[in-house]
Amino acid sequence: MKRNLVSVVGLGPGDAQFLTAQARHALQEADVLCGYTVYIDLVRPLYPEKETYATGMTRDRCRWALQTAQTGKTVALVCSGDAGVYGMASPLLELAAEYPDVEVEVVPGLTAALSGAAVLGAPLAHDFCVISLSDRLTPWEMIEKRLACAAMGDAKEDARATYHLGKLSDLLEYVG
Amino acid sequence: MKRNLVSVVGLGPGDAQFLTAQARHALQEADVLCGYTVYIDLVRPLYPEKETYATGMTRDRCRWALQTAQTGKTVALVCSGDAGVYGMASPLLELAAEYPDVEVEVVPGLTAALSGAAVLGAPLAHDFCVISLSDRLTPWEMIEKRLACAAMGDAKEDARATYHLGKLSDLLEYVG
Repeated sequence: MKRNLVSVVGLGPGDAQFLTAQARHALQEADVLCGYTVYIDLVRPLYPEKETYATGMTRDRCRWALQTAQTGKTVALVCSGDAGVYGMASPLLELAAEYPDVEVEVVPGLTAALSGAAVLGAPLAHDFCVISLSDRLTPWEMIEKRLACAAMGDAKEDARATYHLGKLSDLLEYVG
Repeated sequence: MKRNLVSVVGLGPGDAQFLTAQARHALQEADVLCGYTVYIDLVRPLYPEKETYATGMTRDRCRWALQTAQTGKTVALVCSGDAGVYGMASPLLELAAEYPDVEVEVVPGLTAALSGAAVLGAPLAHDFCVISLSDRLTPWEMIEKRLACAAMGDAKEDARATYHLGKLSDLLEYVG
């Protein structure tokens, strides 16, 4: 078993059938599973015997994972979807510079975009954009600009995308 | 075992460790594995006993898969990366309207963007675009417009994206 290792593991949309063999292996090899409470609840049933460390939606879990790995443990830091996209790989790698004895491994996973598209059929068949509508850390004006740029990227889609943009603006007004 | 079924299966980047459990199950349940020769070569070692049908880069394999499923078989149509993104789910679903007795199941897989990003670290940490640089079916002017729109979508990235766009234009001129 590897030691002094943090694997940041993308779980995909949640059900165990969407885990890659690599993700399953990383969870299996870990001494401790760490992450946001909701994601820990997804993997605890698979490994009921494992130590877990569940946290809120903060970056503290990254430091906890690195500090724990530094004591000679293998830690799996779990994320829903992919490990990188809106995930913990980026903040973890930023902090990891302070822990040169700890190895970091990024284990990719299915994004919500891919797994949702598969349920719908094949809406993502060619070029596409992934744009978060959360304005918690991004100003809404920037989000609107990105949506408009995405619409401009395909003339054939202009009308539909403009319609969606209108609907989104309406929605945002509605929810306040 | 299900019958009259075509599962269009995203294999991810190639190695078996990147298969989801769902993809592995779909391959296991299939009577025949069908797809582009290069992708069939990836899965044949996993199931050496299975019937395979390897084809060129044409849409004929979609009709073959549907016709074979209609005879009462379960067919896995394999794609690299995801089943939808630059994959066969879209052309298969278009043709499937002609085969109402055949069920189609889309099994998502890791795109090259996700698996490549994991190797590099976390370059896809927030919003991103997937834009093909192949001008076989898309005019180069449209590709350039999409790249420019993607660059406009994030002011902080303008300089770098413009640099990349310049490099790409140079590259395209170089390769003729």
